[in-house]
Amino acid sequence: MDNKQLPFGKKEIEQIVRTYPTPFYIYDEKAILDNARRLYGVFSWASAYKNYFAVKVLPNPHIISLLKQAGMGVDCSSLAELVLAERCGMRGEGIMFTSNNTSLEEFTKAAELKAIINLDDISHIPMLESVLPVPEIISFRFNPGPFRKSVGNSIIGDPTEAKFGMTKEQLLEGYRIMRDKGVKRFGLHTMVVSNELRLEALAETAEAVLDLVVEISGKLNITFEFINLGGGIGIAYKPEEQAVDLEKWSAGIRSMYEAKIINNNLPPLKIFTESGRMVTGPYGYLVTRVVHEKHTYKDYVGVDACMANLMRPGMYGAYHHISILGKEAQPQTQVYDVVGSLCENNDKFCVGRRLPKIEIGDILVIHDAGAHGHSMGFNYNGKLRSAELLLCKDGSHKLIRRAETLEDYFSTLVF
Amino acid sequence: MDNKQLPFGKKEIEQIVRTYPTPFYIYDEKAILDNARRLYGVFSWASAYKNYFAVKVLPNPHIISLLKQAGMGVDCSSLAELVLAERCGMRGEGIMFTSNNTSLEEFTKAAELKAIINLDDISHIPMLESVLPVPEIISFRFNPGPFRKSVGNSIIGDPTEAKFGMTKEQLLEGYRIMRDKGVKRFGLHTMVVSNELRLEALAETAEAVLDLVVEISGKLNITFEFINLGGGIGIAYKPEEQAVDLEKWSAGIRSMYEAKIINNNLPPLKIFTESGRMVTGPYGYLVTRVVHEKHTYKDYVGVDACMANLMRPGMYGAYHHISILGKEAQPQTQVYDVVGSLCENNDKFCVGRRLPKIEIGDILVIHDAGAHGHSMGFNYNGKLRSAELLLCKDGSHKLIRRAETLEDYFSTLVF
Repeated sequence: MDNKQLPFGKKEIEQIVRTYPTPFYIYDEKAILDNARRLYGVFSWASAYKNYFAVKVLPNPHIISLLKQAGMGVDCSSLAELVLAERCGMRGEGIMFTSNNTSLEEFTKAAELKAIINLDDISHIPMLESVLPVPEIISFRFNPGPFRKSVGNSIIGDPTEAKFGMTKEQLLEGYRIMRDKGVKRFGLHTMVVSNELRLEALAETAEAVLDLVVEISGKLNITFEFINLGGGIGIAYKPEEQAVDLEKWSAGIRSMYEAKIINNNLPPLKIFTESGRMVTGPYGYLVTRVVHEKHTYKDYVGVDACMANLMRPGMYGAYHHISILGKEAQPQTQVYDVVGSLCENNDKFCVGRRLPKIEIGDILVIHDAGAHGHSMGFNYNGKLRSAELLLCKDGSHKLIRRAETLEDYFSTLVF
Repeated sequence: MDNKQLPFGKKEIEQIVRTYPTPFYIYDEKAILDNARRLYGVFSWASAYKNYFAVKVLPNPHIISLLKQAGMGVDCSSLAELVLAERCGMRGEGIMFTSNNTSLEEFTKAAELKAIINLDDISHIPMLESVLPVPEIISFRFNPGPFRKSVGNSIIGDPTEAKFGMTKEQLLEGYRIMRDKGVKRFGLHTMVVSNELRLEALAETAEAVLDLVVEISGKLNITFEFINLGGGIGIAYKPEEQAVDLEKWSAGIRSMYEAKIINNNLPPLKIFTESGRMVTGPYGYLVTRVVHEKHTYKDYVGVDACMANLMRPGMYGAYHHISILGKEAQPQTQVYDVVGSLCENNDKFCVGRRLPKIEIGDILVIHDAGAHGHSMGFNYNGKLRSAELLLCKDGSHKLIRRAETLEDYFSTLVF
């Protein structure tokens, strides 16, 4: 019995594959919009709340436009992502530019778009100055280093080993320099967890940032306009995992906000986040067809997608739930490795997974592929990246990225 | 003191960057040709020797043409790689098609090119039959499973967990079916190690394959024409590592060949390999410029290449030696993390590496990037894959792949 739900059935997918051959990604528009509404709903207590969608998670203009309609901004961290935002009709403070080891070209583009610039390093101040002498608004990224309380998050790890952000001393110096230049509007950012399901680890971020706002406001006599709590909210990849309780998470931030900001008579702060994974992750699916079965020392099922389409299982050993269309109610009597065709042994979507009996021709759906899915794909072994479709609110579907062709693969070569 | 040599100096690279901005790959034509000659030299005892270059390692037509001139064939494992070989003017038995979870389209192309087809699974026999009823020559891939003696190779791991190849029972059945169809020419392939420096582990492969040739020839009364010992020969990424002694490796194979083939009065076998990494790996370099320096809880050097250009350090924690042009003779007084600009904390070319004092503007050369380098690159975070250059025998250089542009990055999208 498959215990993860799908927004479509075998019939709908069989209809779609007549036009768009497997493998392809499909994203659930309605679920993404409902989720965005839920996220904004839990922050209705805040004077202003905005999520800057981390573009790298799913850099598709149709998705970005959808999220823009839902009130979101974009978190960009490279020139390509800034240009993508621009081509989606975005400008100004709907864009937050959070980059590291940044090029002058990138600062120039961010400045041209009037994005909020979130500096990663104290040495970026003189660099930015050359293209933007006095920013309208400035933010810095904090790295809490050894101050951080909880055990390190397994993905980002120990903040003292993270290349991102600035020490507290550097923050104080940075805000002071910017204040003395005449900047009036300030933000503070941090991002120290990734794919985190534990409320206490998420709460720690908020506490550290709010404490710093109090301290820096007092020491430098500046007023913060926003805090950006970063992203890092995990999703329930495994059926037995629980998604983060957004109500509780927001309530925790609210009580800290009241204790640290309102009780200290500080002016109201806008609350920003830059969630990506939790915004689209659970609402994207990689659809692939079984093309091969193999029985050697183990039982293998070969599909027409591979690691080039979804890297997370092969790269991190990450769990992605797999449903077999039309077999959701069947007992999980078999144990399979579901593999792609890459000439690399870690090209496996699962290892030793209990699944119903699979036959060649079955359509498999790989869940939670709406974040760090297509965007992390590569062309190793000459594999091509797949198409992306949108399952529209009205039940129709549309192509929002075409599949790569051999000519794309060869396009940078001269024979 | 830097103890790894380079085929160019600061002056030559400063000349090149005037035309081709960093980051870029550069491959040393002379060294690749010398190395190919060395490889063929150690097998001069064999009645016929051929290396099928594993295309996935460095799928550039200029490199493939170079290796073709040196007598090599190509090991292809996907449709794109077959088409690449075709566009390099290759056809026939200079191509070995070793794929897994193979599509009918791929078998069709391999058959059209008259490539040697190396089947990965017993179930591929009826599939291939539909496009090629009686192959001129056929090979099967062996997976030794629990028979294998040595401790597993760290990359490919335990053969019983590898998706590749067939059991001995399946091999016997496969050759019998092919013999009964009327096939007269047979090969046998295995590949159970990767980046292996230990001669004993490499020898094991040869021993297993030769034993099988003896056994299967006897049982089925067929004649083997070749054995393909796969690749898997490692390279000395770390200065303290020793490259595989090719003379000793070949001599070990020769003594096994004499014991098992000649002493058993079996007809001569062609010896094939499909080395990729050891053919080009040490002769490719990723050239990148220092654009940033950062001092927080550690000392960081930011370069203009990132994980998108070379995945191995970030993906596997692999060691790649780094030289600082013009500072080869300076003492290694500093400890740095050399990082890219990807918004991902494992985008680091090294962690805690002892290096000379680095300044912004310095040119860094990342060694041993001629295999699984450019070919494994991705576009995560909107990063673009770099150009590839050839350092020609006569000291000149030429562009053999252009750098990606933003328009390439956006090419599968409609705005």
